[in-house]
Amino acid sequence: MRIAVINGPNLNLLGTREPAIYGHTTLPEIEARLRDVANELDVAISFAQFNGEGEIIDAIQALKGAADGALINAGAYSHTSLAIHDALTSVNVPFAEVHLTNIFAREPERRHSTLADAAVAIIAGFGAIGYELALRGLVSKLSTNG
Amino acid sequence: MRIAVINGPNLNLLGTREPAIYGHTTLPEIEARLRDVANELDVAISFAQFNGEGEIIDAIQALKGAADGALINAGAYSHTSLAIHDALTSVNVPFAEVHLTNIFAREPERRHSTLADAAVAIIAGFGAIGYELALRGLVSKLSTNG
Amino acid sequence: MRIAVINGPNLNLLGTREPAIYGHTTLPEIEARLRDVANELDVAISFAQFNGEGEIIDAIQALKGAADGALINAGAYSHTSLAIHDALTSVNVPFAEVHLTNIFAREPERRHSTLADAAVAIIAGFGAIGYELALRGLVSKLSTNG
Amino acid sequence: MRIAVINGPNLNLLGTREPAIYGHTTLPEIEARLRDVANELDVAISFAQFNGEGEIIDAIQALKGAADGALINAGAYSHTSLAIHDALTSVNVPFAEVHLTNIFAREPERRHSTLADAAVAIIAGFGAIGYELALRGLVSKLSTNG
Amino acid sequence: MRIAVINGPNLNLLGTREPAIYGHTTLPEIEARLRDVANELDVAISFAQFNGEGEIIDAIQALKGAADGALINAGAYSHTSLAIHDALTSVNVPFAEVHLTNIFAREPERRHSTLADAAVAIIAGFGAIGYELALRGLVSKLSTNG
Amino acid sequence: MRIAVINGPNLNLLGTREPAIYGHTTLPEIEARLRDVANELDVAISFAQFNGEGEIIDAIQALKGAADGALINAGAYSHTSLAIHDALTSVNVPFAEVHLTNIFAREPERRHSTLADAAVAIIAGFGAIGYELALRGLVSKLSTNG
Amino acid sequence: MRIAVINGPNLNLLGTREPAIYGHTTLPEIEARLRDVANELDVAISFAQFNGEGEIIDAIQALKGAADGALINAGAYSHTSLAIHDALTSVNVPFAEVHLTNIFAREPERRHSTLADAAVAIIAGFGAIGYELALRGLVSKLSTNG
Amino acid sequence: MRIAVINGPNLNLLGTREPAIYGHTTLPEIEARLRDVANELDVAISFAQFNGEGEIIDAIQALKGAADGALINAGAYSHTSLAIHDALTSVNVPFAEVHLTNIFAREPERRHSTLADAAVAIIAGFGAIGYELALRGLVSKLSTNG
Amino acid sequence: MRIAVINGPNLNLLGTREPAIYGHTTLPEIEARLRDVANELDVAISFAQFNGEGEIIDAIQALKGAADGALINAGAYSHTSLAIHDALTSVNVPFAEVHLTNIFAREPERRHSTLADAAVAIIAGFGAIGYELALRGLVSKLSTNG
Amino acid sequence: MRIAVINGPNLNLLGTREPAIYGHTTLPEIEARLRDVANELDVAISFAQFNGEGEIIDAIQALKGAADGALINAGAYSHTSLAIHDALTSVNVPFAEVHLTNIFAREPERRHSTLADAAVAIIAGFGAIGYELALRGLVSKLSTNG
Amino acid sequence: MRIAVINGPNLNLLGTREPAIYGHTTLPEIEARLRDVANELDVAISFAQFNGEGEIIDAIQALKGAADGALINAGAYSHTSLAIHDALTSVNVPFAEVHLTNIFAREPERRHSTLADAAVAIIAGFGAIGYELALRGLVSKLSTNG
Amino acid sequence: MRIAVINGPNLNLLGTREPAIYGHTTLPEIEARLRDVANELDVAISFAQFNGEGEIIDAIQALKGAADGALINAGAYSHTSLAIHDALTSVNVPFAEVHLTNIFAREPERRHSTLADAAVAIIAGFGAIGYELALRGLVSKLSTNG
Repeated sequence: MRIAVINGPNLNLLGTREPAIYGHTTLPEIEARLRDVANELDVAISFAQFNGEGEIIDAIQALKGAADGALINAGAYSHTSLAIHDALTSVNVPFAEVHLTNIFAREPERRHSTLADAAVAIIAGFGAIGYELALRGLVSKLSTNG
Repeated sequence: MRIAVINGPNLNLLGTREPAIYGHTTLPEIEARLRDVANELDVAISFAQFNGEGEIIDAIQALKGAADGALINAGAYSHTSLAIHDALTSVNVPFAEVHLTNIFAREPERRHSTLADAAVAIIAGFGAIGYELALRGLVSKLSTNG
Repeated sequence: MRIAVINGPNLNLLGTREPAIYGHTTLPEIEARLRDVANELDVAISFAQFNGEGEIIDAIQALKGAADGALINAGAYSHTSLAIHDALTSVNVPFAEVHLTNIFAREPERRHSTLADAAVAIIAGFGAIGYELALRGLVSKLSTNG
Repeated sequence: MRIAVINGPNLNLLGTREPAIYGHTTLPEIEARLRDVANELDVAISFAQFNGEGEIIDAIQALKGAADGALINAGAYSHTSLAIHDALTSVNVPFAEVHLTNIFAREPERRHSTLADAAVAIIAGFGAIGYELALRGLVSKLSTNG
Repeated sequence: MRIAVINGPNLNLLGTREPAIYGHTTLPEIEARLRDVANELDVAISFAQFNGEGEIIDAIQALKGAADGALINAGAYSHTSLAIHDALTSVNVPFAEVHLTNIFAREPERRHSTLADAAVAIIAGFGAIGYELALRGLVSKLSTNG
Repeated sequence: MRIAVINGPNLNLLGTREPAIYGHTTLPEIEARLRDVANELDVAISFAQFNGEGEIIDAIQALKGAADGALINAGAYSHTSLAIHDALTSVNVPFAEVHLTNIFAREPERRHSTLADAAVAIIAGFGAIGYELALRGLVSKLSTNG
Repeated sequence: MRIAVINGPNLNLLGTREPAIYGHTTLPEIEARLRDVANELDVAISFAQFNGEGEIIDAIQALKGAADGALINAGAYSHTSLAIHDALTSVNVPFAEVHLTNIFAREPERRHSTLADAAVAIIAGFGAIGYELALRGLVSKLSTNG
Repeated sequence: MRIAVINGPNLNLLGTREPAIYGHTTLPEIEARLRDVANELDVAISFAQFNGEGEIIDAIQALKGAADGALINAGAYSHTSLAIHDALTSVNVPFAEVHLTNIFAREPERRHSTLADAAVAIIAGFGAIGYELALRGLVSKLSTNG
Repeated sequence: MRIAVINGPNLNLLGTREPAIYGHTTLPEIEARLRDVANELDVAISFAQFNGEGEIIDAIQALKGAADGALINAGAYSHTSLAIHDALTSVNVPFAEVHLTNIFAREPERRHSTLADAAVAIIAGFGAIGYELALRGLVSKLSTNG
Repeated sequence: MRIAVINGPNLNLLGTREPAIYGHTTLPEIEARLRDVANELDVAISFAQFNGEGEIIDAIQALKGAADGALINAGAYSHTSLAIHDALTSVNVPFAEVHLTNIFAREPERRHSTLADAAVAIIAGFGAIGYELALRGLVSKLSTNG
Repeated sequence: MRIAVINGPNLNLLGTREPAIYGHTTLPEIEARLRDVANELDVAISFAQFNGEGEIIDAIQALKGAADGALINAGAYSHTSLAIHDALTSVNVPFAEVHLTNIFAREPERRHSTLADAAVAIIAGFGAIGYELALRGLVSKLSTNG
Repeated sequence: MRIAVINGPNLNLLGTREPAIYGHTTLPEIEARLRDVANELDVAISFAQFNGEGEIIDAIQALKGAADGALINAGAYSHTSLAIHDALTSVNVPFAEVHLTNIFAREPERRHSTLADAAVAIIAGFGAIGYELALRGLVSKLSTNG
């Protein structure tokens, strides 16, 4: 089983970006931890991060035939991008949506996800550990259905 | 560490209630699985389910001094109950909100949680396994902050 | 064929509660008349009334396997309760929604029923006789489909 | 007692129009059944159907002094026509609003009736039998008040 | 003259519940003070507190013939409960609505009271002393009209 | 100068239709009075009344080349009809909108006129005399511009 | 019969203020013409204009016992002032609302009048002659009712 | 293959009606051009235009069994008529919606079509040639599916 | 301790202004009663009433250093004035908002107070006695915090 | 005459992307067909597709002086992108907006086009043939105006 | 060139009014600085401040023929006053709108300016120096156009 | 002190893009003028322009440690981009938002800035000179706080 992890705009700044909100863990640290869990679960894993909406769409399109599932944290595009939503439904790869913060306890414009209605599941507010939980949950879901 | 799990209206029907939406796992099966995970994590765990809003409030009030964290799935009250929200903020016990389905991909009136802005985190759409993930996430969060 | 009649908050006050709006017939009188019609139609009938949302949910859950259809007048909860709605869809018993008054000619917050989209039919404004009409209509519907 | 039954646009197509939604009973069949019930109740009954809003208004104006009550199913005009509403309040004939389908479980634009606040009562979702129930209910109401 | 004081969900926690918002006075202390003022005004007074919406409705229904006025602080139900509103209009006992905090200076969902349009008067933001002021005002109003 | 007066649905019932709202003057009486004023002002005048939206549009289309101005009271269509609005802009005959009642002091759905933004002027609430005032005002306007 | 004419902010600039919208007639010219009509109708007339909301309220309060009717053009305050509305209902002098332009064909924020629901009638879009028509209409109305 | 072309209110005025917006081509000229294209495509074609909503519904009902597809320009009714929508879904004849102007670049109330969700396709803004394009597109669609 | 009482537009008419709504007590009578209560509580008290928004702002600005608390009934400006709100926050004098009527049971545009979020407390619906209650409550609050 | 065809995000996936919605024709097939039609009409044609909003803007800016017209299908950006809208108005090249599906019969967020008010015309729902129709319509429009 | 500077309600309190928000500079200090810049730019400058809306309108009306441009900070009236807006468009003097704070980063009701659509330019958030920048910008604009 | 100037989509077209709206000054001319002012103020300055949202985010992220302040004109992205907003708050560099036109006097969708609540200040409508004023204001602000 192959899982792709795609992070969106400004998530490359994790650890230094408003740490009171987003925590001190960096993106490479999250990715290292996910690699360990992937090994434990015996699944292949890949990582990518982009600031551009078009690049994220390119990356999602490339998942077709190359991944069996995905973890998506599209950052601020989660709240506005119909085009990323369409890329996800076009390639039809099951994905879990991950947010570091509990977006439903934040500013009004962040309380809605444009991607959520295409997602298998959503997890928000557990911080960096949320990625790991999402990976376990998604792999479990895909294994059960398979 | 003591964790309380409180389920709301109609969740006692799990397994027979619209299984196409909510799955075939029953609430006792979920609770059994949570008990195993709690043992693994070395935390105490308790369970309760109520159909009445007032009973849920009573149960939450009783958490004060009796639990260090909670998993809450308030069912349909999640979308409407300010009183349960206030009970949660009154006792000030950190909790994770759990939903079996991805409520953000359902009917409009279910896409908003009245409780979420008081929650540490929210997890939705992973089905029965979501409770286990939430338990792991919450215990991890509480341990880190402790 | 077994039909259950469930009335919600404040309907126990019928006859004395704002009679200019709700009429002078009491709930026992309505139930007596329904018993006669049930005899005529050769169906079994049972009655219940509760002020609490949780008790109504308990009663609806108990319909599973115990009733073939229901008449529901959830009173003011008709306009707000998603949890009663979910109880009704969970037990999957066909029901007709009954209101004494024409709720669509009343205050704005009463012009919407949260339950209606799960109902077979709705009848409002005929006063006490509306229960009888609903009973006849529901039995006819259930007989036709059977 | 004289009762007039007025049906609005596209109801002449009943039986062939989207039967999965509106059923297989034709309008003449409904009218025949209503004639029988009217005989049983010893009331005079008349029927009309129009596709044009103006023709319906003409027909309603003609009720003045010619009918003691009416059953109105204004079809799609039910959701938009203030002019039919005004015709009904102008002639001041008590009427029950009838809908074959449960309009409150349909598309959003059909969940509101412009006529309802002038109606004595409303009945929706019982299919063809709803007309009969409405006739019985209206005659009962008019007899009681008389 | 008999006055009933009914408090709603979470008000039993007063003194320990978010004291920065709700103050340090407990509910028994408020009730003791009200008893003194009632003695001064020579009116009988009774007290009750419930977390459940149905129980509050039961208590309000019991006021009929047993109380001449009421002080109601329905807590979070004040913002959502149409059923409590209907219980109040059903028993037709004049009541003053009391809030410890100035609800109109709080979160948007607390700036509206579902009960207020049935109340004689509303008082909010004076803290515990607000109950006493409301008692004086209500007794004065009832004496004047009597 | 030729002025056409077109009245819409239910205005043929004036005098008997809800006289507490619309007054006791009949449409023929209004037209007689307008004929006198037209004579005084030395303008030709014609009258029409229709219940159907299409007939009103036909009548407005016929104004082209046949009238120099119009008084329009489209009744309930005033609040909803874009098609009458388009007929009026299509023939490009200057018109004054007349209402017997002050529509801006009535029910919310009557406080908006779909036609008003195409009108020269609007007059509402003077009762039957409003037609006469509108005729004087329109003739004055047309004379000034000519 | 005594009629008071009160004009609001910026109406003193008539004739020079955006003449393409408001015309070339000055306020003194309008008042002179109204004086002539008042003589013809044998009624007393007085005039005032203010830029301040408080001054307009003072003037309206002074109408009590001093005028039998009023023409009010509150200018831009017409769209926002609840306090002028209350002054008008407090003194209870019947008034007609006058606007030079057809406010219902202008910018959205001008299409609503806060005063209209307290007015006897409203006239808008006839330009300077509208005052004269309103005077005739109001005097006629007051004479009829008297 | 038989195609019916139905035009709605005020489209009989094409060529003289606000030519800056709707162009100088008349409806007969459009129909003549469509007849030529129909010949080229070897399909039968018929034409109708009505100002009344009821007449349009009558005409659409008559399409059943008499036409294989339709071009509909319902003029201003496009933005408001649920009854025409229902006639179209009742007869179930595939149709393309045509507008001379780009309605999505016009006034807000014209930017929504009540009919569009029942249409196969929509074309707007190409002027008179839009009918021809729609005919070609519809015939192509119907041929492909056949 | 010095308390200022400021009343807004039309409150000088109390006693004669719509007495069915606002009661028969005049403003001087209210002020006399407040003077007595102030004596009892041993606080200095002053009074002012203005119809103009600017004058009220002037008066509020003058409170700085001259008053320790205020009772404000800004009349109709309560629902619209951001400038009075800013004057109150600028001088930073704690104030209680008073309304004679229960504004939350009145017309929609009166159910919102622009000032309330800056107030210590709000009291509405007790009629003239509400001023006295507010004075007692405010003095108590200020004494407790001091 | 030179026509540019610019397609937006995910349109490169045509043929495999949700074919039940978007059909089986691939983008290269559409472009091949358009090349044939361009030859027939004797116009030059060019093609481009991008997933990134910025790249689309770059391409549109490059049209200035290089194209006489354009066909634009901006995919999901059609519903959200003000920046593409501005690029189109900046270069001032007339364009037709093309959609494969009838976007007005789809999800609410797809029923609005941000680009449409700058377009000459819009065509939606004809599938792949819609591009060809748009090309013919646009060339005809440009030829007529030239 | 003559420039008038008009400040609105509560701006006379600058320096003491919520200095954390509005800064410590007083209005006289701002005016002194503006006088220096005016000298540098060789333009005449005048100053005024009012708490009353009517007084501000009077002052703006007096600009006609007396000033070539204006700096306007209408304080809280900026968000509500249509009458000040109309005074500004009536005298037709070009003006720049100035705010000390970034009103677009404040409470929702302050994020809209009623005056802005009549302004040449707007500047907000630079504090006291914003007046100087606005003066330089306005003079530059007026010089360029002259 | 180092200031970065970042311009967004279509601003590279300045001078030729809709000059009636945006003026004839080109972006290089603006940058040249800014370089002169920067020299005068003795601050370093850099320039960038991008059409892509992702590129703008990249550029803003690069400001961290490389600039002390920024002037941002994000063009059409100003009205929609939450991701650019987050980049700005992530790097935490104080910035002034600049617009050539008075966006608050333009189309509704341009009257809101997604970035403004993170900005120090905003300046709009002064045309090209606005950049210079913003530079002076920002440098002054930063110097004062330093």
